[in-house]
Amino acid sequence: MSGNTFGKLFTVTTFGESHGVALGCIVDGCPPGIELSAEDLQIDLDRRKPGTSRYTTQRRESDEVQILSGVFEGKTTGTSIGMVIFNKDQRSQDYGKIKELFRPGHADYTYQQKYGFRDYRGGGRSSARETAMRVAAGAVAKKYLKQKHGIEVRAYLSQMGDVKVDLKDWDAVEQNPFFCADPDKIDALDALMRDLKKQGDSIGAKVSVVADNVPVGWGEPVFDRLDADIAHALMSINAVKGVEIGDGFECVNQKGSEHRDVMTPEGFLSNHAGGVLGGISTGQSVVAHIAMKPTSSITVPGETVDINGDSAEVITKGRHDPCVGIRAVPIAEAMMAITLMDHCLRHRGQNADVQSTTPVIPAQPK
Amino acid sequence: MSGNTFGKLFTVTTFGESHGVALGCIVDGCPPGIELSAEDLQIDLDRRKPGTSRYTTQRRESDEVQILSGVFEGKTTGTSIGMVIFNKDQRSQDYGKIKELFRPGHADYTYQQKYGFRDYRGGGRSSARETAMRVAAGAVAKKYLKQKHGIEVRAYLSQMGDVKVDLKDWDAVEQNPFFCADPDKIDALDALMRDLKKQGDSIGAKVSVVADNVPVGWGEPVFDRLDADIAHALMSINAVKGVEIGDGFECVNQKGSEHRDVMTPEGFLSNHAGGVLGGISTGQSVVAHIAMKPTSSITVPGETVDINGDSAEVITKGRHDPCVGIRAVPIAEAMMAITLMDHCLRHRGQNADVQSTTPVIPAQPK
Amino acid sequence: MSGNTFGKLFTVTTFGESHGVALGCIVDGCPPGIELSAEDLQIDLDRRKPGTSRYTTQRRESDEVQILSGVFEGKTTGTSIGMVIFNKDQRSQDYGKIKELFRPGHADYTYQQKYGFRDYRGGGRSSARETAMRVAAGAVAKKYLKQKHGIEVRAYLSQMGDVKVDLKDWDAVEQNPFFCADPDKIDALDALMRDLKKQGDSIGAKVSVVADNVPVGWGEPVFDRLDADIAHALMSINAVKGVEIGDGFECVNQKGSEHRDVMTPEGFLSNHAGGVLGGISTGQSVVAHIAMKPTSSITVPGETVDINGDSAEVITKGRHDPCVGIRAVPIAEAMMAITLMDHCLRHRGQNADVQSTTPVIPAQPK
Amino acid sequence: MSGNTFGKLFTVTTFGESHGVALGCIVDGCPPGIELSAEDLQIDLDRRKPGTSRYTTQRRESDEVQILSGVFEGKTTGTSIGMVIFNKDQRSQDYGKIKELFRPGHADYTYQQKYGFRDYRGGGRSSARETAMRVAAGAVAKKYLKQKHGIEVRAYLSQMGDVKVDLKDWDAVEQNPFFCADPDKIDALDALMRDLKKQGDSIGAKVSVVADNVPVGWGEPVFDRLDADIAHALMSINAVKGVEIGDGFECVNQKGSEHRDVMTPEGFLSNHAGGVLGGISTGQSVVAHIAMKPTSSITVPGETVDINGDSAEVITKGRHDPCVGIRAVPIAEAMMAITLMDHCLRHRGQNADVQSTTPVIPAQPK
Repeated sequence: MSGNTFGKLFTVTTFGESHGVALGCIVDGCPPGIELSAEDLQIDLDRRKPGTSRYTTQRRESDEVQILSGVFEGKTTGTSIGMVIFNKDQRSQDYGKIKELFRPGHADYTYQQKYGFRDYRGGGRSSARETAMRVAAGAVAKKYLKQKHGIEVRAYLSQMGDVKVDLKDWDAVEQNPFFCADPDKIDALDALMRDLKKQGDSIGAKVSVVADNVPVGWGEPVFDRLDADIAHALMSINAVKGVEIGDGFECVNQKGSEHRDVMTPEGFLSNHAGGVLGGISTGQSVVAHIAMKPTSSITVPGETVDINGDSAEVITKGRHDPCVGIRAVPIAEAMMAITLMDHCLRHRGQNADVQSTTPVIPAQPK
Repeated sequence: MSGNTFGKLFTVTTFGESHGVALGCIVDGCPPGIELSAEDLQIDLDRRKPGTSRYTTQRRESDEVQILSGVFEGKTTGTSIGMVIFNKDQRSQDYGKIKELFRPGHADYTYQQKYGFRDYRGGGRSSARETAMRVAAGAVAKKYLKQKHGIEVRAYLSQMGDVKVDLKDWDAVEQNPFFCADPDKIDALDALMRDLKKQGDSIGAKVSVVADNVPVGWGEPVFDRLDADIAHALMSINAVKGVEIGDGFECVNQKGSEHRDVMTPEGFLSNHAGGVLGGISTGQSVVAHIAMKPTSSITVPGETVDINGDSAEVITKGRHDPCVGIRAVPIAEAMMAITLMDHCLRHRGQNADVQSTTPVIPAQPK
Repeated sequence: MSGNTFGKLFTVTTFGESHGVALGCIVDGCPPGIELSAEDLQIDLDRRKPGTSRYTTQRRESDEVQILSGVFEGKTTGTSIGMVIFNKDQRSQDYGKIKELFRPGHADYTYQQKYGFRDYRGGGRSSARETAMRVAAGAVAKKYLKQKHGIEVRAYLSQMGDVKVDLKDWDAVEQNPFFCADPDKIDALDALMRDLKKQGDSIGAKVSVVADNVPVGWGEPVFDRLDADIAHALMSINAVKGVEIGDGFECVNQKGSEHRDVMTPEGFLSNHAGGVLGGISTGQSVVAHIAMKPTSSITVPGETVDINGDSAEVITKGRHDPCVGIRAVPIAEAMMAITLMDHCLRHRGQNADVQSTTPVIPAQPK
Repeated sequence: MSGNTFGKLFTVTTFGESHGVALGCIVDGCPPGIELSAEDLQIDLDRRKPGTSRYTTQRRESDEVQILSGVFEGKTTGTSIGMVIFNKDQRSQDYGKIKELFRPGHADYTYQQKYGFRDYRGGGRSSARETAMRVAAGAVAKKYLKQKHGIEVRAYLSQMGDVKVDLKDWDAVEQNPFFCADPDKIDALDALMRDLKKQGDSIGAKVSVVADNVPVGWGEPVFDRLDADIAHALMSINAVKGVEIGDGFECVNQKGSEHRDVMTPEGFLSNHAGGVLGGISTGQSVVAHIAMKPTSSITVPGETVDINGDSAEVITKGRHDPCVGIRAVPIAEAMMAITLMDHCLRHRGQNADVQSTTPVIPAQPK
């Protein structure tokens, strides 16, 4: 299979470039009978949409999604769901000047060498604009998981630069432009962003994704472990350089006696594992963290090479996010939801007959 | 597809339990005409083999691999390669006593709930014993990559507990039981292991994998990015809880002006990206790091539940590694090599005709 | 994977219903640098288009395809190609009256039972309208195969009812509304169609597909044999009930001494095998034949059941082809081309290094 | 994915050559808790086994299968099932003499050109010996389908040369060496075989496969239709040149009014469709027919070329079946069962929630 499809039973296949005619995707394998409308998808698309605050790119895109198939009389039919978003604000002139240059930290050079030439308009296929369709597809998965299993897939910005944000309050996340889960950190984030704007520079970030109410038993050992597929899904998001499940890299300096999550009849006493053991969900919350690199589209001049291999200088103009981590929040939720949905269908495909006589251990004691 | 196959064009499918009759795998898609013998595979199998030092489990397994098909007159034929390792030292009695218990931090509970019952002998399919076949398959990939592209895939233990190990010398790695790349750190590691043995506890670790001489252009956007597939491959290894590409989580506090790797006609001036941009290899070394959790098989008594959901106490006897990170080194190399090999074949399948007029930028200036 | 994707390296994923908003597909894995425009696709779409002659359905669809991505400055970029055709002439009222009925010989009943409900408008996803996107995707493959390998993929109507048509002249095929390869048979076909119209009945057909200049070596034993994938591809076309490679069912009464195709240094002396041995192309023409059932959309009244399981009578009105075999000709070409293209990429992915010292045997002696 | 795996959720991956060390397979995705032992598999292996009658090759192979994993305490665990058969009677000397020749009608030439060299011992991977593992894997599927759904998958020899055999009695099939379903035809088949032996020639055959009690709703439109996957599965069997579903090529001369299967509340009145409409099972028997070519391994001398491309004469000695159709009967059953099983799991993966309010129509009236 080629690289633009994700999933085995619930599959998402996407197309589209930053400055092409349109972006689109096909969601295949969605169970029938789920109420679905464009409005359901628009909610998350608007959360990712550019130009929503002074902290993100000023490109103006309504990102209006149309459902072209797979939904009849308001319900999914079980056949493939086609969706499309037509590009509006393209401003190719912003990009013409770097047609001959390879921006450091960008995919310009690798696309040129892999394919022999490239769509240089806004990064073409390598632009994060592609993630709009992931969000649309993820919204289908989120709706199904919520409706059928009560699963809540949510993410928040857990760090930007040296500003760490703890999960104080899920409701707060939607009430500020940073997806910040701690109202007390908003000023610090705002100050950091203002500095960066002045410097014409960018910063990295950490995003945390949590799926509550995932039942025990999802995940396919040994290669398609739930956590391995989550890592695949999250690392495939533009600018992501690291993925952790549960305690992640903190495990390096933990002892077995601290790390292991004790099980009691009343519930698990901790969740260092992040809700996955042996590649299979434990029934606890599935927790993942991702590291986002600072975008390389900055106005600080840089040395580079051109398409002839000669030395050149580059200054990225155009409209860019000083921290791509902010808009990555709904994208991370989408990829987590798509992965969980795929494993939901895979699990019951093989194990629909299974009845375990062992009682389910609660996620935590009451 | 089910979960025991990895790869799209170069595929590895495995079977086998800790205390079953045998472990085996099928390597499909290997190009024909590659010289291959069991000896080639045994080298890496011996590096992973238990019982090689006092720092690893004392289970005695010769792990002798047999090639059953796909090789004729000493060369791969292009057809599927079957391999098998028969289990010898099984000692089921070590495990009978925990037949009714779920060991905290283990997959006992999740397997029981997913499948309705489980092979409780040594963890059955969830045991790291399964990784022996990954190493055998990885050795095929390593040989091909070395022979056809001069690619060197190597790993080392970069941290255990609070002992950090820098890459001082690749040769040193094979000269100590820790795969330690800095001879000056061996005493500290040895001391740490002795303490753990006394405490009957275990510790986490970090392993770093480096692939040198990977050509520019491998990786399939958008979902099958090279780094996304590497994350999938490495996260699928038992006990791995985190994966980083290049600077990984250090990116969170980096600025774009520091992070972006400057390109000059003489070469890249840095490799923060870890050799991947836009999901495609840059021609620099591909660098990944993994976090390994401390094994939960420790002799420190712990609270848990049994298969009836009642409270119980567990003490893991049997023969276990105080730090699973050590033996993970050859496994990490194997999974990196399998992923690179798959992308090598996928890339040329689609792009064999491509000729880029842009000169290749050296990995670093001479 | 779900059911709306075909191919492993060159993949085609489709969506769309007979009376939905639009039909579309994503072609993934197409090599970069191929000149491609909507006009290239429109040629074959027009050959399949309804309403082109009095022998086919009078539904009016311009079937204008738009390319939404994957093509830049007139060339494929190597990224996924999105295409769409918006439906125009939908006339849902034609179908409302059978909303409650299951038409015998149609997928109404099976869709209802599989999914719990169905898009009853013109058969929804089960309508042959879906094949429009196969033709668009196939045109991409045909162009690549022609340009890079000189491969010609062509089909013709080889039988309708009891009227057998031999391949007299490829040029004739495009000069009549039946894709008839023998001008002397056109009157007989015309007469047969007139009778059927009078009777309000339909008839089956046989279509033959030939791919000339396919090189030796394409096809992946053992399950993904070239002929097995061709069978999969052709049997997936609506109304196809049989597939033959080469002599097909004539083999049942052949002896080995007649059937085997003798090889000489000057070339093969016959092609009973249809260009495939052991699942791999021989270098001869790849020849396949398909059996099309007579459409069940006829005006002859029939007994059936309704969605409550009660007895009912059905008369299909609406606009239908008395012989779906006619418009199947470009669809069969498309599926053959897509299959060959996928195997072209798969073959070179694994075997790009191979150099055989055995000279190639010509398809036939000069 | 490479070519040695079949299926999406229930997958079978095989390895092994005619004269290699062993044949083996991995069955992945089998539901847990199914009672399974080597004896269950041996029954069908013995039906396919060479040397069982004077009508088949005299090669002596006990074909004893060992289960190496995936079964614990007599039940499948849900993890991958490894199986192996070690080759015994190899007699390579039989084949040495044709090391330099390409046997007409065989895969010798195509393997040589695809891979650059070949395992010439008995055809290596292209030998029908490979099908032993399909039969072993198919036996797993047959057991599951029988136990969970009451599905019976059976096949019989329906024609050899000009001797047609109707399905008179399923019990008769197992009581003669031809898998002949009509006791009155056994003498004619015996006479035909004796003639062929005298002539040193071979003959083609037709095999029919029937799956009774398949529920309505299995199959994934549009490309993975149940009939399309059956065609793929059956055409992938060595020597198969044609596949029909239901009436197959008879449809070419049928009218819609004859072909369409009338539905009544009491049941379907006919089964021209062969149990599949729109790619989804109807609840009737699934019926397929395959055309087997006459084996090219005959003692009639033939003209051919050698590995240098020079003209040569070939006489195939060794031990061969005058009609490969006979032993194809259990293989056809196996591939049908594997395909049904895969679709059983795929269907419930997506549609486990579905409840249709439409009553199920019986396969036929009482």
